[in-house]
Amino acid sequence: MPNNSTAINAVFHTLADPTRRAVIERLSEGPAAVGELAKSFNMALPSFMQHLSVMEECMLVRSHKTGRVRIYHLVPKQLKLAEHWMIEQRSIWEKRLNQLDNYLLKLKEKEK
Amino acid sequence: MPNNSTAINAVFHTLADPTRRAVIERLSEGPAAVGELAKSFNMALPSFMQHLSVMEECMLVRSHKTGRVRIYHLVPKQLKLAEHWMIEQRSIWEKRLNQLDNYLLKLKEKEK
Repeated sequence: MPNNSTAINAVFHTLADPTRRAVIERLSEGPAAVGELAKSFNMALPSFMQHLSVMEECMLVRSHKTGRVRIYHLVPKQLKLAEHWMIEQRSIWEKRLNQLDNYLLKLKEKEK
Repeated sequence: MPNNSTAINAVFHTLADPTRRAVIERLSEGPAAVGELAKSFNMALPSFMQHLSVMEECMLVRSHKTGRVRIYHLVPKQLKLAEHWMIEQRSIWEKRLNQLDNYLLKLKEKEK
């Protein structure tokens, strides 16, 4: 599915940055105002806003305005997509290793 | 842990490319010779080798020579590191959503 693949590219690209991962860690615990988020990072506000914009673009976070304050919250859907890809790969190689284990076990039993 | 964080940066960066993900998908099923891997991708060999080198640098794959053939295989350890980070985030927000659910349920029961 080319669309899923493009989405997964963007999610992994977003997660490759430690600031953006730290934002996700914070938002996992609940929504936060942009000011509250920004003050945790020793970074100029425009650079920090750039990170948030990358995250919003690939739909890992969403924001809305409440009065004069912009609130960010996590959108788990895209994270799940990337996690699903990883779990799928793991299940394939774990299955293969189990088959190898079984084969070696049978070989050992034959030797007895 | 700065070391883990640097490793996770590199793993997510590696996974952000569809060719490199396709190589992992192939290697999940078992080791493969470089020639066999390369022929699945419509790409000049030097570019393809560059992808393999990125993957070997962040220890997602390893290679060894058997005669004149270089064989690549998957190293699951680094993938697990990145997967662990994702699962940790999910467990935090799922716990928070459950707490919210319980709170709303109690509120509803009080209203009855």
